Amino acid sequence: MSSSNPLRDPADRRLPRIAGPSGLVIFGVTGDLSRKKLMPAVYDLANRGLLPPGFSLVGFARREWAHEDFAQEVHDAVKEHARTPFREEVWQQLIQGMRFVQGTFDDDDAFERLRSTIEELDKAQGTGGNFAFYLSVPPKSFPVVIQQLKKHQLAEQQGGSWRRAVIEKPFGHDLKSAEELNKVVHEVFAPEQVFRIDHYLGKETVQNILALRFANTMFEPIWNRSLVDHVQITMAEDIGIGGRAGYYDGIGAARDVIQNHLLQLLALTAMEEPSSFDADALAAEKTKVLGAVKLPKDLGRDTVRAQYTAGWQGGVKVRGYLEEDGINASSKTDTYAAIKLEIDNRRWAGVPFYLRTGKRLGRRVTEIAVVFQRAPHSPFDSTATEELGSNAIVIRVQPDEGVTVRFGSKVPGTSMEIRDVSMDFAYGESFTESSPEAYERLILDVLLGDSNLFPRTEEVELSWKILDPIEEYWDKNGKPAQYPAGTWGPAEADEMLERHGRSWRRP
Amino acid sequence: MSSSNPLRDPADRRLPRIAGPSGLVIFGVTGDLSRKKLMPAVYDLANRGLLPPGFSLVGFARREWAHEDFAQEVHDAVKEHARTPFREEVWQQLIQGMRFVQGTFDDDDAFERLRSTIEELDKAQGTGGNFAFYLSVPPKSFPVVIQQLKKHQLAEQQGGSWRRAVIEKPFGHDLKSAEELNKVVHEVFAPEQVFRIDHYLGKETVQNILALRFANTMFEPIWNRSLVDHVQITMAEDIGIGGRAGYYDGIGAARDVIQNHLLQLLALTAMEEPSSFDADALAAEKTKVLGAVKLPKDLGRDTVRAQYTAGWQGGVKVRGYLEEDGINASSKTDTYAAIKLEIDNRRWAGVPFYLRTGKRLGRRVTEIAVVFQRAPHSPFDSTATEELGSNAIVIRVQPDEGVTVRFGSKVPGTSMEIRDVSMDFAYGESFTESSPEAYERLILDVLLGDSNLFPRTEEVELSWKILDPIEEYWDKNGKPAQYPAGTWGPAEADEMLERHGRSWRRP
Repeated sequence: MSSSNPLRDPADRRLPRIAGPSGLVIFGVTGDLSRKKLMPAVYDLANRGLLPPGFSLVGFARREWAHEDFAQEVHDAVKEHARTPFREEVWQQLIQGMRFVQGTFDDDDAFERLRSTIEELDKAQGTGGNFAFYLSVPPKSFPVVIQQLKKHQLAEQQGGSWRRAVIEKPFGHDLKSAEELNKVVHEVFAPEQVFRIDHYLGKETVQNILALRFANTMFEPIWNRSLVDHVQITMAEDIGIGGRAGYYDGIGAARDVIQNHLLQLLALTAMEEPSSFDADALAAEKTKVLGAVKLPKDLGRDTVRAQYTAGWQGGVKVRGYLEEDGINASSKTDTYAAIKLEIDNRRWAGVPFYLRTGKRLGRRVTEIAVVFQRAPHSPFDSTATEELGSNAIVIRVQPDEGVTVRFGSKVPGTSMEIRDVSMDFAYGESFTESSPEAYERLILDVLLGDSNLFPRTEEVELSWKILDPIEEYWDKNGKPAQYPAGTWGPAEADEMLERHGRSWRRP
Repeated sequence: MSSSNPLRDPADRRLPRIAGPSGLVIFGVTGDLSRKKLMPAVYDLANRGLLPPGFSLVGFARREWAHEDFAQEVHDAVKEHARTPFREEVWQQLIQGMRFVQGTFDDDDAFERLRSTIEELDKAQGTGGNFAFYLSVPPKSFPVVIQQLKKHQLAEQQGGSWRRAVIEKPFGHDLKSAEELNKVVHEVFAPEQVFRIDHYLGKETVQNILALRFANTMFEPIWNRSLVDHVQITMAEDIGIGGRAGYYDGIGAARDVIQNHLLQLLALTAMEEPSSFDADALAAEKTKVLGAVKLPKDLGRDTVRAQYTAGWQGGVKVRGYLEEDGINASSKTDTYAAIKLEIDNRRWAGVPFYLRTGKRLGRRVTEIAVVFQRAPHSPFDSTATEELGSNAIVIRVQPDEGVTVRFGSKVPGTSMEIRDVSMDFAYGESFTESSPEAYERLILDVLLGDSNLFPRTEEVELSWKILDPIEEYWDKNGKPAQYPAGTWGPAEADEMLERHGRSWRRP
């Protein structure tokens, strides 16, 4: 982990963002997220020389593991899921700071053992009392863990050291529960100590929205109601709920995706330019634009929820949502949600933002499409532009990360005929640097205390304020529409846009 | 040549632009242009079903050919240079209307024979008296041919038939000579009968400038002095003067390329939107913008001419201009010219348009680059944007026809670093239709009487008005700078832009 590490990220060469002395405690370390994302991210950071030599990783879980068992688990997770190559010398250094604390969340002894483990690491590894607590646990356990951290003085920052809490989604399931959770959290941690994970914000393409808009000259002048017809923000999944019935049922697509990911994407797409790129300035703009979001007057016409029915996906026959294991046949949980929002400010008034997400859709894709109005006047014959659609700038969040611009070009030939063509920028082709995983970026930011990419209390609460009336309306009115698995959602969603003379993209 | 021709251009399916009964007379039919471009273009048009069944092609030249010899010549030229496949049935139909007239331009008998040939074709082929006369002859012969056409009543349009004159460049070598030539031409032909060839205007990519700007929403709002820093229009050739010493010496790069091609590209790039895409409306806008072009105050600082010296090109040692066969060792003819122009109107005031052209440059490329100002404010750290250049929209006229947008994107990595990337649209990849040759398009337009793509008297004269003072200045002041063959021009041209804090693109 010397600074001459050949795997050191070349993108970091001018601003070496290397964490200082510190450690990470993961609650729920035996879970999927920890194994597939968090442990590999820690290794990748170490391998890239971005962690301090004495960095320590503490696992906390109920399982009866010795330190060696935990180290073996991390080892296997890293081998299977890390992004960068496995290097024995990096691993040998990392393993020095690995500890496991066995216990349940209500076990005071276990938290005392955690405290003494941290003290021991401070001496043995030089972590300097700086620890982040990553709550990779079910939402119902958030309060008990937070309170235990307080009770055992683990949240206390002494003599210049820091303690931070990292909280996985979901952050509440409506405004009221989010407010309650915020209250619990902030009784123990100050706002600057709290890092709420929305892993979408760790994605390169999402951060690139800011670069695209504000480092360039040519996009911002056309990024407004004078020229934009509407915006479509889509997160489509091709998978069903898998083994997540217990978590998913009663939550649904809108709470699971729109409240956090899609509203964050909306905020980054629509916000005004911050005066600087620091966390406060950024949060101020995101909060401002989320506060200006206006719900549709007629929630029956301008929102749609639906459930997938049996269908075909990737050549395989798949079950409908109500037939999935663990789902009640009378469940009204949405596996698809589409809503129309507007933004009440000078830049966007009257421009619809259509948000949609769903499981078992045509393909896995997340994108933001800014669709422009047609040219106000065409000097060409109307026949020349019959096949011309609307200009669009599409930020491809995943997969095929990049940007596409759709515009009209003359078709080769001896008459003037204009047709849509595309210009593409692809991350993979333009950069030799490979993209860090979102969790690499976010864990490093936590250790650095950089909260740019973490939604704040106000943003979370504003997002629930937007979603709550829609969920309440759905609760009281009828039941979800339906769409066959493998299609692009229910007919009702198509009709919702057709009423406005528009149509969903088929990305 | 039926309308169900399978090679019929699919781009023409909605607006079948098929020439009516007509014929084409080529003066100078034994020349290079005729053999490489005009004859193949006629065949390609026939093959695509865009010529009438009785279409006739008459060659006029000094050579002692029989009709059969001429047909054989056309046959060979088509086999060698045509764009579309050779099809015997198309050829057999085309050959019916082929005639050759032997004679010199001052030979009255020959012009009488031409007249009776045309009358014979009207009867045999049904050409209806409609003939275009293509003057593919040295400029000094323009007047005599024009006058002979008048003397032998070949320019007269009778009973609804049409006669048109097609004039190859150069159209004069300064304003005075252009005015004199216009006078000669318009004593015989009305303005709507005259088609001045600037084959650049027949290129797909050049016509696409209009589609790009005016069929789309997103480019026009940023196409002005508020956002554009400057525009670079380049036509670079890698070849030297070849066997053209006799034509080229005394003419030079500025007269050969800037006066026509580059000023036409400037006009299309900078003009206001015409109210419709008809010839009058288009010419009005081009004339308006050419009339607003302002010469630099200091012609010594803001223009550069130069000659290539010996150097290496494509791994081969090549001679300097003054060592070329047929060039006087004291010649001051420019093989490279770069000039800075401005446009005195509301849209462009203060925005420099840099035009450059040259032979024996680094590579063959013609492009228009609209280079934008830097963002007025950057919310990012200055280190984040150190490697960020200016946004640019580049219309690639040839080769690799298409459009490139250069903009800044986040470099993958855990810090915010922004670097230039490109988005490309390539004609070749986006369309299955192959592009017609410029001469196909232009000959068809002549036969249809569509003068959109032909510069008018006013445009030609305005272009000379722009160039004349520069040529006069060069005549009186010093001698050309020098640049080694295979480089990107003289140091003086680089300095000219550096003084304005800019630099030439290396496309």
